[in-house]
Amino acid sequence: MSDDMKQAALDYHEFPRPGKISVELSTPAESQLDLSLAYSPGVAEPVREIAKDPDNAYRYTAKGNLVAVITNGSAILGLGDLGPLASKPVMEGKSLLFKRFAGIDSIDIEVDAESPQAFIDTVARIAETFGGINLEDIKAPECFEIERALIERCNIPVFHDDQHGTAIVTAAGMITALEIAGKTLEEAQIVCLGAGAAANACMKLLVSMGAKIENIFMIDRTGVIHSGRENLTPEKAAFASETDKRTLDDAIDGADVFVGLSGPNLLSAEQLAKMAANPVVFACANPDPEIRPELAHATRDDVIMATGRSDYPNQVNNVIGFPFIFRGALDVRASAINEEMKAAAVRALVDLTKQPVPQDVLDAYGLDSLELGPEYIIPKATDSRLLGAVSTAVAQAAIDSGVARLPLPDNYPLS
Amino acid sequence: MSDDMKQAALDYHEFPRPGKISVELSTPAESQLDLSLAYSPGVAEPVREIAKDPDNAYRYTAKGNLVAVITNGSAILGLGDLGPLASKPVMEGKSLLFKRFAGIDSIDIEVDAESPQAFIDTVARIAETFGGINLEDIKAPECFEIERALIERCNIPVFHDDQHGTAIVTAAGMITALEIAGKTLEEAQIVCLGAGAAANACMKLLVSMGAKIENIFMIDRTGVIHSGRENLTPEKAAFASETDKRTLDDAIDGADVFVGLSGPNLLSAEQLAKMAANPVVFACANPDPEIRPELAHATRDDVIMATGRSDYPNQVNNVIGFPFIFRGALDVRASAINEEMKAAAVRALVDLTKQPVPQDVLDAYGLDSLELGPEYIIPKATDSRLLGAVSTAVAQAAIDSGVARLPLPDNYPLS
Repeated sequence: MSDDMKQAALDYHEFPRPGKISVELSTPAESQLDLSLAYSPGVAEPVREIAKDPDNAYRYTAKGNLVAVITNGSAILGLGDLGPLASKPVMEGKSLLFKRFAGIDSIDIEVDAESPQAFIDTVARIAETFGGINLEDIKAPECFEIERALIERCNIPVFHDDQHGTAIVTAAGMITALEIAGKTLEEAQIVCLGAGAAANACMKLLVSMGAKIENIFMIDRTGVIHSGRENLTPEKAAFASETDKRTLDDAIDGADVFVGLSGPNLLSAEQLAKMAANPVVFACANPDPEIRPELAHATRDDVIMATGRSDYPNQVNNVIGFPFIFRGALDVRASAINEEMKAAAVRALVDLTKQPVPQDVLDAYGLDSLELGPEYIIPKATDSRLLGAVSTAVAQAAIDSGVARLPLPDNYPLS
Repeated sequence: MSDDMKQAALDYHEFPRPGKISVELSTPAESQLDLSLAYSPGVAEPVREIAKDPDNAYRYTAKGNLVAVITNGSAILGLGDLGPLASKPVMEGKSLLFKRFAGIDSIDIEVDAESPQAFIDTVARIAETFGGINLEDIKAPECFEIERALIERCNIPVFHDDQHGTAIVTAAGMITALEIAGKTLEEAQIVCLGAGAAANACMKLLVSMGAKIENIFMIDRTGVIHSGRENLTPEKAAFASETDKRTLDDAIDGADVFVGLSGPNLLSAEQLAKMAANPVVFACANPDPEIRPELAHATRDDVIMATGRSDYPNQVNNVIGFPFIFRGALDVRASAINEEMKAAAVRALVDLTKQPVPQDVLDAYGLDSLELGPEYIIPKATDSRLLGAVSTAVAQAAIDSGVARLPLPDNYPLS
């Protein structure tokens, strides 16, 4: 970023008042009567009703539309472990996106915990406050244990967006890109550079949607994760290949797909050149991708590319996923966000990419047209159709898979 | 409450949407540029600034104006221990009052903890999220240990309003009532019926403002707390009297002051009749006071009365305290709400009661006039002068006592 942009970002956070979110009243509170209903003595009535039946918390409090964005600050964006307090602008930003895109009230909680278990206990104890929990910026491998334990202990959706949000958007783009390339997920040879939380979730979701685990090479700092490696975490061990390939250079030869969730400029032009015809390259390191789109397109003209950046086509942007996934889950009071709901979100995104793009989306990006093709494999973040498409698909999948406690609301599909 | 009022209270909480508070954006988030400043990549800048200096969290996030209302639901209003979830309407109501009266963003957190220590650990670990913590509806004696530990562990104000808010408003009303009665706090013989959290804090604050501890009889379910009693909690032991009085009936004889923080109709007309001339009776049990004002006034015409109810004169209502106490504390970034700040709040309330009442306050209560006297010893909840008076007094006391980290803001006194 330029110095001007950096200053603009600081000013944006400081003015007109510090931060990006506020708490407001959603009921009148002017008259003595208002106050006697909102607080003592009237408030005793909803208290009694909830004591009788906990479900009444959804009827008489803000719980059902409230999602906590919770972190320990151990993996903030690409900046690393800067601690809970420094993560607060990111968490507030996430809360802002929940509200902006899906009308979900969201508050950030920064947890200063001495261990994963302390973090788990803390979040589990405050979970009743909320309708859902979005875990954020927690480093691997602790994030796996934390999410697993919290899903087990909480009866509300718990979702680690860095894993599953990224995986859902990546899978959607990948399926579309492979269709354009004339290939299928079932046959694709996939190289995943990076073995952290997002990489693990992406590969798991691709497998659950049809990719063959034996066609995947996952690569960490040590090299290709193979069955001869020792001391692998359970998450890495799940992707250990029976192979004599040891490096990215070995693995990339003839690969159909490269997924980068690692760092800048780690895929060379020479490596790209060795990939199969019509290669699909998701270079998602931010802000500097594993290979710059300019270099990739200069190297070969049959590449289909996505990045994490908004200034190139095909941005892998979680904001087209998590607000609507939670919207759908909250609206049918799902007890979890399960694999069926994630797959439904992927399919909804894929389907949407194939529909004609509305004029207001074109206008927002200054485009004359936008049609399915190498430059358009992922819906745009400001596409207002996402709300209806994704939340309906997720809510219906919750119902079909038996984790919903309400039917599809009357106001669905949302618009 | 009538059935109609009960239904009105439920409707108030259910419509137009469940609950009483929502989270809103305080910055623009429409354009791609807005979003790139609010979230990735712009958000990295405030993150880096906070990592460099934690104080920058007050500059770039909502922390500095954000107060958490936190409970375990163990002493909800007069309803008892109904658990964390059932307390949510009360906690949201408190958040509503923070915003309505002092512009403070406030969010409720319900904690399901298996022990006081688990509660303490949980709140301490999430404390960095907030600018202050308001503990609420936690039963005695655990509330004492919880507040003490959290004040020790947190570098932001931690304030148990059921204790100190009640104490501050009671002390202010008491000082004014005694002046009208021609007595002083130093000489007053005080009977306190009830020995829970609020009673303890009220008596402690009265002592710190001049009352003599040897002039106080505190009474719990067993009777007068005296030095011969065994197994007293430390908080009760601090008020154990050297006396042969054993019952309320013994203690009330000749007393100047009765403070009731107990239950309905526990002070009889006969007992009131035995009090000294110009007795001051604070009958604060809700909704039914220790003695009904009608009965008290029928018993003797020199009684000065306050209750917890809005439908009688002299309501002891915490809302004239806590919003402005936190406002003052936050605005000078106080690290705590100490005894000096509480005393300053009391004095500000006493002073305000002696000023002419503005017309809008009279209008709101349908009164022609309101002057210092037996029917007006406590400011009215909707008196807009409270914001300026109390917050300035508290902020100045924080500065004078060395716990403030900022000078008095330029916009003080607030109006």
